[in-house]
Amino acid sequence: MQRCYGAFVSLRGFLPRSVAARASVASLQLTAKPYPKPRPWGILRPLNAGDVMSNWLDAVKWDADGLIPAIAQDYKTGRILMMAWMNREALALTVQENRAIYYSRSRQQLWRKGESSGHVQQLHEVRLDCDADVITLQVEQIGGIACHTGRESCFYRVYQDGEWVSVDPVLKDPKDIY
Amino acid sequence: MQRCYGAFVSLRGFLPRSVAARASVASLQLTAKPYPKPRPWGILRPLNAGDVMSNWLDAVKWDADGLIPAIAQDYKTGRILMMAWMNREALALTVQENRAIYYSRSRQQLWRKGESSGHVQQLHEVRLDCDADVITLQVEQIGGIACHTGRESCFYRVYQDGEWVSVDPVLKDPKDIY
Repeated sequence: MQRCYGAFVSLRGFLPRSVAARASVASLQLTAKPYPKPRPWGILRPLNAGDVMSNWLDAVKWDADGLIPAIAQDYKTGRILMMAWMNREALALTVQENRAIYYSRSRQQLWRKGESSGHVQQLHEVRLDCDADVITLQVEQIGGIACHTGRESCFYRVYQDGEWVSVDPVLKDPKDIY
Repeated sequence: MQRCYGAFVSLRGFLPRSVAARASVASLQLTAKPYPKPRPWGILRPLNAGDVMSNWLDAVKWDADGLIPAIAQDYKTGRILMMAWMNREALALTVQENRAIYYSRSRQQLWRKGESSGHVQQLHEVRLDCDADVITLQVEQIGGIACHTGRESCFYRVYQDGEWVSVDPVLKDPKDIY
């Protein structure tokens, strides 16, 4: 599925000033590794505590509630599985534990995806967007079910002629999941 | 790229009550077409004004600001290109005009993606998630550049060892885009 993401080419020093300002990348030390060796599908190593860790979390533009949207995508097929929210602690733990950990806005607490269903999302990659206010996660969806309705993806309703039509199969009865 | 999204199977009457309640699908008339013929990659037809149109927009769970996150994904490669926001008008126009139209929170106005750059996003599919509070768009990215930095995708920074590292090439100087 490499072709799903095109070629990964090192950035040779180009970064528009406007982008740098908007993303607060001054603290990102982007110039520390001018020719990084990308590991797009590699397993992330656990973090060491320290300044660097603090910096990359500071670079994120958290919203007024201290949250950022995180989009989980199947690392093999490219299918978008779900979108949820993370606070600072959730993102730090996600990288540290190599699994998706969100922040549940309704329950107002950390949400270790799969903690009750077993449908853990193993982490393969984390990306930050140009405005530093959205995250993508490349994940391996254990059990093949990301949605609480028992479907592979939460995005199972397609717009058709003025209606939202469910088009994806329920793979497992939710009663048997939770 | 069908395999990116698995098999599309008609829903045979299964819809958990909890989901129905959460998504306010009562107004969706999901049972109107029990065996819909999905057109996952087809071009959407323009909407006819009327009750149905109102219903599908009412089914969306807009946030406190009247917005919903919209994730744009390349319809061929599956690459996530960007995430932006839509208000009710933007989503209605997106479907009506078959191109991504967002709502710019900073400028507080409609943002017809590509209006100055030419990098229009032609619409192939719209999906709504289980909670009815996130949208995905399958798009054809005209010009192959979604990001204002001149890159294919806004998600060009990868987390590596406590840093965000830019790994994707700039395809076109932003000065030549805008």
